[in-house]
Amino acid sequence: MAGNTFGQLFRITTFGESHGEAIGVIIDGCPAQLDIDLDYIQGELDKRKPGQSKITTQRKEADTVKILSGVFEGKTTGTPIAMIIPNEDQRSKDYSHNTDVFRPSHADYTYHSKYGIRDHRGGGRSSARETAARVAAGAVAKLMLKAKGIEVIAHVSSVGKIDAPNVDISNPQAFIEEREKNIVRCVDPATAEEMIEKIDNIRKQGDTIGGKVTCFITNCPVGLGEPVFDKLHADLGKAMLSINAVHGFEYGSGFEGSEMQGSDHNDLFVNTGDQIRTLTNYSGGIQGGISNGMPINFKVAFKPVATIMTNQQTVDANGDAAEIQGKGRHDPCVVPRAVPIVEAMAALVIADHYLRNQTAIL
Amino acid sequence: MAGNTFGQLFRITTFGESHGEAIGVIIDGCPAQLDIDLDYIQGELDKRKPGQSKITTQRKEADTVKILSGVFEGKTTGTPIAMIIPNEDQRSKDYSHNTDVFRPSHADYTYHSKYGIRDHRGGGRSSARETAARVAAGAVAKLMLKAKGIEVIAHVSSVGKIDAPNVDISNPQAFIEEREKNIVRCVDPATAEEMIEKIDNIRKQGDTIGGKVTCFITNCPVGLGEPVFDKLHADLGKAMLSINAVHGFEYGSGFEGSEMQGSDHNDLFVNTGDQIRTLTNYSGGIQGGISNGMPINFKVAFKPVATIMTNQQTVDANGDAAEIQGKGRHDPCVVPRAVPIVEAMAALVIADHYLRNQTAIL
Amino acid sequence: MAGNTFGQLFRITTFGESHGEAIGVIIDGCPAQLDIDLDYIQGELDKRKPGQSKITTQRKEADTVKILSGVFEGKTTGTPIAMIIPNEDQRSKDYSHNTDVFRPSHADYTYHSKYGIRDHRGGGRSSARETAARVAAGAVAKLMLKAKGIEVIAHVSSVGKIDAPNVDISNPQAFIEEREKNIVRCVDPATAEEMIEKIDNIRKQGDTIGGKVTCFITNCPVGLGEPVFDKLHADLGKAMLSINAVHGFEYGSGFEGSEMQGSDHNDLFVNTGDQIRTLTNYSGGIQGGISNGMPINFKVAFKPVATIMTNQQTVDANGDAAEIQGKGRHDPCVVPRAVPIVEAMAALVIADHYLRNQTAIL
Amino acid sequence: MAGNTFGQLFRITTFGESHGEAIGVIIDGCPAQLDIDLDYIQGELDKRKPGQSKITTQRKEADTVKILSGVFEGKTTGTPIAMIIPNEDQRSKDYSHNTDVFRPSHADYTYHSKYGIRDHRGGGRSSARETAARVAAGAVAKLMLKAKGIEVIAHVSSVGKIDAPNVDISNPQAFIEEREKNIVRCVDPATAEEMIEKIDNIRKQGDTIGGKVTCFITNCPVGLGEPVFDKLHADLGKAMLSINAVHGFEYGSGFEGSEMQGSDHNDLFVNTGDQIRTLTNYSGGIQGGISNGMPINFKVAFKPVATIMTNQQTVDANGDAAEIQGKGRHDPCVVPRAVPIVEAMAALVIADHYLRNQTAIL
Repeated sequence: MAGNTFGQLFRITTFGESHGEAIGVIIDGCPAQLDIDLDYIQGELDKRKPGQSKITTQRKEADTVKILSGVFEGKTTGTPIAMIIPNEDQRSKDYSHNTDVFRPSHADYTYHSKYGIRDHRGGGRSSARETAARVAAGAVAKLMLKAKGIEVIAHVSSVGKIDAPNVDISNPQAFIEEREKNIVRCVDPATAEEMIEKIDNIRKQGDTIGGKVTCFITNCPVGLGEPVFDKLHADLGKAMLSINAVHGFEYGSGFEGSEMQGSDHNDLFVNTGDQIRTLTNYSGGIQGGISNGMPINFKVAFKPVATIMTNQQTVDANGDAAEIQGKGRHDPCVVPRAVPIVEAMAALVIADHYLRNQTAIL
Repeated sequence: MAGNTFGQLFRITTFGESHGEAIGVIIDGCPAQLDIDLDYIQGELDKRKPGQSKITTQRKEADTVKILSGVFEGKTTGTPIAMIIPNEDQRSKDYSHNTDVFRPSHADYTYHSKYGIRDHRGGGRSSARETAARVAAGAVAKLMLKAKGIEVIAHVSSVGKIDAPNVDISNPQAFIEEREKNIVRCVDPATAEEMIEKIDNIRKQGDTIGGKVTCFITNCPVGLGEPVFDKLHADLGKAMLSINAVHGFEYGSGFEGSEMQGSDHNDLFVNTGDQIRTLTNYSGGIQGGISNGMPINFKVAFKPVATIMTNQQTVDANGDAAEIQGKGRHDPCVVPRAVPIVEAMAALVIADHYLRNQTAIL
Repeated sequence: MAGNTFGQLFRITTFGESHGEAIGVIIDGCPAQLDIDLDYIQGELDKRKPGQSKITTQRKEADTVKILSGVFEGKTTGTPIAMIIPNEDQRSKDYSHNTDVFRPSHADYTYHSKYGIRDHRGGGRSSARETAARVAAGAVAKLMLKAKGIEVIAHVSSVGKIDAPNVDISNPQAFIEEREKNIVRCVDPATAEEMIEKIDNIRKQGDTIGGKVTCFITNCPVGLGEPVFDKLHADLGKAMLSINAVHGFEYGSGFEGSEMQGSDHNDLFVNTGDQIRTLTNYSGGIQGGISNGMPINFKVAFKPVATIMTNQQTVDANGDAAEIQGKGRHDPCVVPRAVPIVEAMAALVIADHYLRNQTAIL
Repeated sequence: MAGNTFGQLFRITTFGESHGEAIGVIIDGCPAQLDIDLDYIQGELDKRKPGQSKITTQRKEADTVKILSGVFEGKTTGTPIAMIIPNEDQRSKDYSHNTDVFRPSHADYTYHSKYGIRDHRGGGRSSARETAARVAAGAVAKLMLKAKGIEVIAHVSSVGKIDAPNVDISNPQAFIEEREKNIVRCVDPATAEEMIEKIDNIRKQGDTIGGKVTCFITNCPVGLGEPVFDKLHADLGKAMLSINAVHGFEYGSGFEGSEMQGSDHNDLFVNTGDQIRTLTNYSGGIQGGISNGMPINFKVAFKPVATIMTNQQTVDANGDAAEIQGKGRHDPCVVPRAVPIVEAMAALVIADHYLRNQTAIL
């Protein structure tokens, strides 16, 4: 039983391998009458696409998205929205040396063991190329949320041990503009510079490094999220953990919160006249699994990319010892290109729960 | 659209409020011919039940489980297994003062806002009492996994800033026995003593403290987990984040892995003759979302319990400022009783993916 | 993968065997703030319960339903509604002779083959006793629909070859009252008398007979039903075909429509000032899978009950030839008690699609 | 909440409008290592495609299918199989006159009412063109079933009031060959001739006529189908009722069975040495919702096509009276082209339940 579908009411199904003809996505459940801005969708894809700077992979993909259905005269019709992104710069021969050898900390061995067959060209279905389809679908979800005033914004908060300070999220548009001024996508310019230098050094060593992305959802209405299993943060967590290379997720006070005492951690309610809000936000905008109107925030930890340019010991499909050296064109650090993916998956979760909440009360 | 169902093939649906007549669970999809050991199920519930030691809530519940269907002459029949646990020591009057006042960092405000109505007695559906139903269902999942040689074992690895050292998981039975020798459920005896003292002090202050639970799955076959969204660790993450008070999840190298370089982080394959394994296990037993035969490990962060015995400022259902003082009987630290819940949810995920994997190859 | 759950947003999961301790149902997704009238729910169950007249089985079951969760101070809270119905008059020994012998046209052989184990007492899970749980859940769905002015009404339109004439559905309340005046539940009194005599004769012969139930949904809003697979009539059809003994389903013009020409069959639109409606209703109130505001109508065919009081040749679990004679207490004709089941399942489908339609437009 | 996905473990999602750029389907859950014969898939599409004879619509579509993913070196890999079929002969201007006028007995009015927007070109998503995607997916399901020896075969059993006699299904290959010898796809040659003449006359009148398709599944193993809601015939029924123009479904004894007595209707078991089978097959190969090893048979009733070449009264989007005359290129009778669709949907249901049954026993 495969698992290529995500969401309940705003539901996406992705398809496609790294080196096949195309990848794509079907969105089922997007409400009718939403204005579709194709340039916006393409713009989101451009933030994820390879070859955009010296600190990303040099694979060249235009990643041009095409809508095949579900949109009529610029508006959604309530029917499935199919989007397709052709693969162009496939260079499968880069991977011919990997046919029978399992790359360390990749999915080669597990796919081979599970299915007895695998498309060995560049990771096939396990490649992060699949996330382009998520970004396209997430852009539609973002358009839906924007129509309701909800914004989903993320940036690179850590590269290795370099951490960004807290950043201002009061103006989502300014946040995005500031972030896009540098190639590492960290809102704080000084930290960004440090991060870029670090990644560039790592790249020159043929090595890779991990990092973290922090995401915020602002102006989210009270009431999104369902008891018991489909808590809003549980679905956000699953969404993030389904992204390639993610090893950790925390929201609100997160892991640090587990070291605190209740008397410090509790978020006291106040009525500001305009709205009921909390003095602190250790809850991360979610209480009992349901949004409480405060900004939602969470952090996602990415491991270092597994493909490195040095020799490594491994085994082949016969179980014999083998040696492998990274080839192909890979990212020294995944987080700059992960920012739009994190935003896309978050937007999909929020859009889904927005729709689910429509039926809470008779 | 409510979310009280978890799992695809091994699927549970829970019901019940904290102070209603009963809570319970239906398991749909458990294979036929599994031997059901009711004593084992009850034993798991006993580890979660309140009132078991000085560092847990003093609410008294026998938590006696009764099987209503799906088991015939000691074996599962393939039909739904319904289990029910009556509520006994309900003392709803303890909560009469909460009718209109929102307890800080609880789900009162969000449930009230979402539904316009709530069962205000002790949290109703948002109470952690619901997790007893999960433990009962998880015990059935564990029985199924044990029949296949798979063990799910967890312990308290942190209370506040007190961290346990790495522990030996080579003998799951010994792990459990050692853990059950102390009331905090930490396998390391010296750390356990320190933790118990800490919690007892916190309790005396009328305060609460957070902690962490670490879980291991041993002898898991290669191949469990599905691409793309239903990666094994994504489903484990969602399962953990759906548990009350959980604010973070990491597996394998986790958040620390995001600070590492690929050359250190990659797990090199070797063939030991018996099996293909990795020299290190930063992957946490999962690669590309699919189990690789190494022990699976993950860590879960719990925030401090929100109910504290001091006065706190808040607002009421009219939006007016109010003051609240914790009453009722609550845990000073949730992790000792969370251990069986973490194990139960992990077992449910593994059982589900075990079944899902049956159809990977024609 | 078991299939004991029905519905997407208004979702039920049933459990329980014929001769176990209890049967029951969980409703997940019922909106909050619905008034729950327990007497109404019990009244629906009373129409299905055994022993109500000379033409039904003489098994005695009070079928008293108890709500365990999800309702607080008479209103739904948005959390799962669990309902339980104890089994009382179980007489398992009536079935001891069936342990190893497969009853013709029952599910004994198929359950035995599929699971290798079965609860042989009275059909276990395959017994129509399970439908009591559906009737309880359907009663809640009906309460929800009534709050929106939608009525679901059915009656016995055929017993064997005795067919009722078309009946008046303009006043749903009068329809129900007229129907409940006779024990066969046919709205036409003269036909009812004939049907009752037929069934009574069949009963005296120790034989059984089939029949049909016709159902109407009045005042259904335009727009319920989803393209493509979840067409409203496709979900109604599945719902009906999931009821024990059902062998056929048709809506609108049905099988007769397949003999007609388009020029006769097309339903022409007119605007009556109040609403757009059609001059004829061969479409059965559904076009393109979506309700069009006209009364929905469909017909359900039930085969004769398989348990008869004569000797029949069969085989046993060893594959050896055997002989079986019907014992136990069974219905000579299932349709009088099937009427509330048909209504319940129809109401569940409509309630589900009512909620699903809430998200059609942004 | 849209409904463009069908199946649980062998799951398809279709997309595309009649006059958009392309239609297509994603199959998720097809097991790995299945040999994919693209010519076979194309051959199935050719049986459904328009313009194949004088008694079908003259719209010209090559309906050339292209596989975008999920197949590597001729075998499935366990990842999603995406297939796309471009629309070629779209002639949208044929439909420009329909922009604001609701065609009688079409889905124009209901889509317009539900979504407030619709792709009015040729029915958009409600067009039977969508079924080409189902046929492509069904062909993959058939390949999977053939690998297990299971055959799904259907033919036209009625056109209007012309009924075919019972036909021989003992040799599925011969059945198909005989059927494909005539353009109406009825296995009985004499009846076929009569049917063709009837349809041709109807066509000349600018009218349309309904019909029936009968389907058989041979060599189906015992045990497919799930209690309670997901009975095998309930899922077959939903599958058939989801096909455009279907108004009725019956299996085994069907509607006639509802007129019979139990003593005639019961299927007595015998052991033939090779297998346990029944002397008669009123159960249609399914008992208690689970296949019993006998041939499965069911019948599907199609209403006459709604587009006729005569003037009809209707209303427009403003609710004003209007007149409409059928234009475009339409089928005078849908059943010859419906045969591969019925087979496809049946194969999808059987493939799904084949996989589901893999987890019945531990």
